[in-house]
Amino acid sequence: MSGIPGSASTALLTDRYELTMVAAALADGTAERRCVFEVFARRLPEGRRYGVVAGTGRLLAALADFRFGAAELDQLAGVVDATTLDWLSRYRFRGDIDGYPEGELYFPGSPILTVTGTFADAVVLETLVLSVLNHDSAIASAAARMVTAAGNRPLIEMGSRRTHEISAVAAARAAYLAGFEATSNLEAGRHYGIPTAGTAAHAFVLLHDDECDAFRSQVAALGSKTTLLVDTYDIRRGIENAVAVAGTELDSIRIDSGDLGVMAQQAREQLDALGAINTRIVVSGDLDEYAIASLRAEPADHYGVGTSVVTGSGAPTAGMVYKLVEVDGRPVAKRSAAKRSRGGRKSALRRHKPTGTAIEEVVYPHATPPPIGPNDRVLSVPLVRGGEPVAGLPTLEQGRDRLRAALVSVPWEGLKLSQGEPAIPTVFEGA
Amino acid sequence: MSGIPGSASTALLTDRYELTMVAAALADGTAERRCVFEVFARRLPEGRRYGVVAGTGRLLAALADFRFGAAELDQLAGVVDATTLDWLSRYRFRGDIDGYPEGELYFPGSPILTVTGTFADAVVLETLVLSVLNHDSAIASAAARMVTAAGNRPLIEMGSRRTHEISAVAAARAAYLAGFEATSNLEAGRHYGIPTAGTAAHAFVLLHDDECDAFRSQVAALGSKTTLLVDTYDIRRGIENAVAVAGTELDSIRIDSGDLGVMAQQAREQLDALGAINTRIVVSGDLDEYAIASLRAEPADHYGVGTSVVTGSGAPTAGMVYKLVEVDGRPVAKRSAAKRSRGGRKSALRRHKPTGTAIEEVVYPHATPPPIGPNDRVLSVPLVRGGEPVAGLPTLEQGRDRLRAALVSVPWEGLKLSQGEPAIPTVFEGA
Repeated sequence: MSGIPGSASTALLTDRYELTMVAAALADGTAERRCVFEVFARRLPEGRRYGVVAGTGRLLAALADFRFGAAELDQLAGVVDATTLDWLSRYRFRGDIDGYPEGELYFPGSPILTVTGTFADAVVLETLVLSVLNHDSAIASAAARMVTAAGNRPLIEMGSRRTHEISAVAAARAAYLAGFEATSNLEAGRHYGIPTAGTAAHAFVLLHDDECDAFRSQVAALGSKTTLLVDTYDIRRGIENAVAVAGTELDSIRIDSGDLGVMAQQAREQLDALGAINTRIVVSGDLDEYAIASLRAEPADHYGVGTSVVTGSGAPTAGMVYKLVEVDGRPVAKRSAAKRSRGGRKSALRRHKPTGTAIEEVVYPHATPPPIGPNDRVLSVPLVRGGEPVAGLPTLEQGRDRLRAALVSVPWEGLKLSQGEPAIPTVFEGA
Repeated sequence: MSGIPGSASTALLTDRYELTMVAAALADGTAERRCVFEVFARRLPEGRRYGVVAGTGRLLAALADFRFGAAELDQLAGVVDATTLDWLSRYRFRGDIDGYPEGELYFPGSPILTVTGTFADAVVLETLVLSVLNHDSAIASAAARMVTAAGNRPLIEMGSRRTHEISAVAAARAAYLAGFEATSNLEAGRHYGIPTAGTAAHAFVLLHDDECDAFRSQVAALGSKTTLLVDTYDIRRGIENAVAVAGTELDSIRIDSGDLGVMAQQAREQLDALGAINTRIVVSGDLDEYAIASLRAEPADHYGVGTSVVTGSGAPTAGMVYKLVEVDGRPVAKRSAAKRSRGGRKSALRRHKPTGTAIEEVVYPHATPPPIGPNDRVLSVPLVRGGEPVAGLPTLEQGRDRLRAALVSVPWEGLKLSQGEPAIPTVFEGA
């Protein structure tokens, strides 16, 4: 489960300083101090109005494989001393983790994940925790905006080729969590059970002596319930050929270039005139949330999205940090004029109007919750207890449902694509 | 070598449509047509003046594991027919690959990689090839600008937490290729032999009852040849404490917040006044190539770079495409008004002045090279022959040297950080 070449361990997906800190803390006796680390984002990406938590499921899987075996310890012989190597050889996380479940919205300062344990137990997880959450949440946050922009029209994630080959699998998962319908990525299909989609590229048409040959071959192999790519040569001719070959029962055509709005209109008219009134139009090619929104009035039935979703549409990382907030019950914080660092373990709830519209995110000291009203919702759930994942953790499908419901609760302004403030304010009680 | 949870194969890191195309081509007899696919970038990221090829070494490793075993074939049972499953079960790439070696510069239209083989053999590699090259080249291209901006001052890559946990390993490799000195990522140290660096975070200081305790502990564990992080509370006091604890032989201090230029100046004065004249200053915190350049006049000795390098500093993907350019000796190309698609297999050379300064990138039809002058350099090298990597492929260190030499050849305007045109024009001969 590691995703590491030649290794079943995730333990070296870690910054060197986590381990040198453990070495020094083991030597001076502070390694066993009870600590609380908190993951939060100081701000949302420029102009974004909400973030979407994603990656928790992947994180818990990676945590199970966070073990220092012989291969890892060999590598660390020059990094830390023998005592530390011995400690690492017996390492397994023994603490607790609480956090916002996948698909939950977050805002600046939301305590997205809380890791409780000894200093040494908890500090070594910093890099892995942040890598997973920062990546997956960045993708899901961008993808959710695309899903909103698309209204009821389905989105297919097809960006594997635009990102690292393994990130691509996680990106497909995050996009699916956010409401995409399918992915082009076969490994995401295998590993996460996400529906996969895809039929043919321009290369397939170019391979053949003419476009009709290619279409005939594709229909013979995949049936008329396929998607024919019609823009290799001339789109008008391509649609003519597609319907001639596949008949009016052709499932869809795909247009991957040109002015997609104009092309979709012309294609719809032509398809209808040819009697292919149920043949759908898939558009792809440099789509982002803004381009998707601009196509809402056009007869595009499906969107294929690549680069923009897997790169977070301008915000490729969520900017979450993992901060020590409590040592042996004492709140701690780096002194900082510009950055808001609030010591002490926190929890959060979200207040809503009776109509269900969210009003504010309330972050409060863990031990002293504010009065909870009938329309308030506590946001953290237990994820790990004594090092073991709790039973009945939310599934990917449940995360998808959670986000769908959460987006309905966002004040309408918060769903706008334009740059703005966070959809709801974060209020720090007792701060 | 796959990097896939629970799998030794890279074969499902693939878009579904590659396999449905294979299925149709096997059925219609075109699967064995001799094809040439070419990887190139239509343009550089907005305003960039050059790109850096990276990932080839990783790609060849992943290619060796591109096999469809029982687990992969199980997953594909609903995707393609029995004939195709059988073909996939015997798949290994049998063709040839040529390309720009790692560390080479590229420009719009440069034929970065050329894959020659049967259609079926070559088309299934599209997703993997692009994922690896687009990711790694994006990072290396951004990192090279940072190296240039830093002059002779060393850079440490510390961005693992800002990107997917496995991409982080590849990002460290690409940054090292581009001239970074070290990485925080331990897996990159293990897998690629890249020097690793890192000592302590703010959490380590906060863990202790006071800053001096933390510094004493660190020096006891790591020696005075360490880097003490001095900005947890008050920087001036932190530096005082650091020198008091470690002595004037302290290797370095690190400043991770505030106005780094001002802080570096003040720190230098203070260190010198304390007699720590050889203690170096490491600065980190939201550095990108522009911030690095702006610190050139300041007494910062080392730069730690995170988010901006692992996310490609605004260009997280290189935008390379994998296009079918030749079928059975016949040039092919998608018809396109806006995109430059040139059919036919190509090669390239770079022309230089006698002084060594590059003049232009010449892309020519494979079989008809233009006259090659004494200052011209052919850019592609054989990478794979008959499915096997050729002997003596360049190492990562050689790629690093290659880039260093290539950057010296760039006209001085091409090294400017400001937005501009590609450093040299690409000339298409016989196009």
